[in-house]
Amino acid sequence: MYFTAAELGDQIKKKSSYLCVGLDPDLEKMPPHLQKEKEPVFEFCREIIDNTHDIAVAYKPNLAFFEALGPNGLEVFQRVCDYIPDQNFVIADAKRGDIGNTAKKYAESLFNHYKVDGVTVNPYMGIDTLQPFLSFEDKYTIVLGLTSNPGSADFQKSSLREGHALYEEVIEKVREAGSADNTMLVIGATQDASIRGIRELVPDHFFLVPGIGSQGGDLKSTSLNGFNRNIGLLVNSSRGIIYAGGGRDFANQARKAAEELREQMKDLLDRA
Amino acid sequence: MYFTAAELGDQIKKKSSYLCVGLDPDLEKMPPHLQKEKEPVFEFCREIIDNTHDIAVAYKPNLAFFEALGPNGLEVFQRVCDYIPDQNFVIADAKRGDIGNTAKKYAESLFNHYKVDGVTVNPYMGIDTLQPFLSFEDKYTIVLGLTSNPGSADFQKSSLREGHALYEEVIEKVREAGSADNTMLVIGATQDASIRGIRELVPDHFFLVPGIGSQGGDLKSTSLNGFNRNIGLLVNSSRGIIYAGGGRDFANQARKAAEELREQMKDLLDRA
Repeated sequence: MYFTAAELGDQIKKKSSYLCVGLDPDLEKMPPHLQKEKEPVFEFCREIIDNTHDIAVAYKPNLAFFEALGPNGLEVFQRVCDYIPDQNFVIADAKRGDIGNTAKKYAESLFNHYKVDGVTVNPYMGIDTLQPFLSFEDKYTIVLGLTSNPGSADFQKSSLREGHALYEEVIEKVREAGSADNTMLVIGATQDASIRGIRELVPDHFFLVPGIGSQGGDLKSTSLNGFNRNIGLLVNSSRGIIYAGGGRDFANQARKAAEELREQMKDLLDRA
Repeated sequence: MYFTAAELGDQIKKKSSYLCVGLDPDLEKMPPHLQKEKEPVFEFCREIIDNTHDIAVAYKPNLAFFEALGPNGLEVFQRVCDYIPDQNFVIADAKRGDIGNTAKKYAESLFNHYKVDGVTVNPYMGIDTLQPFLSFEDKYTIVLGLTSNPGSADFQKSSLREGHALYEEVIEKVREAGSADNTMLVIGATQDASIRGIRELVPDHFFLVPGIGSQGGDLKSTSLNGFNRNIGLLVNSSRGIIYAGGGRDFANQARKAAEELREQMKDLLDRA
């Protein structure tokens, strides 16, 4: 469900966790016994959610993995979104970005039909392409800022003539277009050297942080450099949690992996 | 079906047309009599295709409009893709862009499952995020370069410290990553002042050109500045064709609108 930035901070403090569990269900990586189920992807997500919803503040189903299931993939996406408990924040990882009339269709579809609370979007086409998402009240437009992959160096880190980097220009324009209660930024955990500077640019916004775990990002330095008064971070783990185990006890293994992250997060919250 | 750049040029010369028809089916804009059909969106697209496939070189179904139909939208998308005749080139307008394992899912889904010939992608996250698309043989990765909307000024036209604009940096890196037989660039028709310079950067690549019609782009100056030895342009029209008429004769009206564009294109081809 929707939370203001302050309310999301309260959720985090209550759960001692700023964990977002990324739902990237991949048939090839799922436990063999599930393959025989009628709805393997839904069953996989259902068990993950059942075993982590008290630890996770947010879930981030990734549309690519649902669309890859073929034409019925969006039905599975809908069932998964509907199954996530109300007290969790739901982010559609879509990274959409298109001109106005097309962006409006994506926004209506994801916010009205699937009823997610936030959608990741790509800023390359300009701020006018984000407006159809921003026009929704009580929803978050979550804009790619500085991503976790090596290719973030290709364009995002390009130096503009004014002296700052492109991603800083993006962040400043996003700050002008929305508020901390309807926009977030995607900032990769592998970019921990830059997070303190980004936090100065946007002191109040939440960051959605991918890149810990298999991508090598550092939870500790990301957290201590990124926290704000509402905590201000949703740190995502996808593969590190959902594929922690590959057998019949995969959901228990996922819970254990989530618990380990919560322990680390609890320590960092205590230090902040 | 897939064509090399030279073969696509041959198709264009044979048809005297470099028209791409954009399929943005919007229930609210469709003729009332179709609303009663069991499959209004498919029927709408089917009639448009039946009446334009000999004029159009390419079709560009826009995923946003299919996803907006709800969970069965991708089934309709599949039926439409399957219905387009083999001799037309099919572009999924998806504007996807994500890290490697996610991009791979999008690429597999669109190229293998829906069997489209090209996919539009967003370069913001870097060249590594385009590689999963580029790794497909006999498919086109169609990268956003300089788009047609006003917001293209926000970031795409930012001046880099080296003196050129971000979109020029994108185009140069895309040129290094692929060839004219597996990459195209999206260049808006509203950017006709820049097209000659872009053509110098990438003499052999096809440009997918949106923005004529309701967005105000100029076909003539875009064409005369953008042509190369294989013609090198696919000029898209969506609303101007598919909503040319709003009644029972909408498909005839669409054909007339397409014919008018072909006439203009024929003149411009004769001049080139």
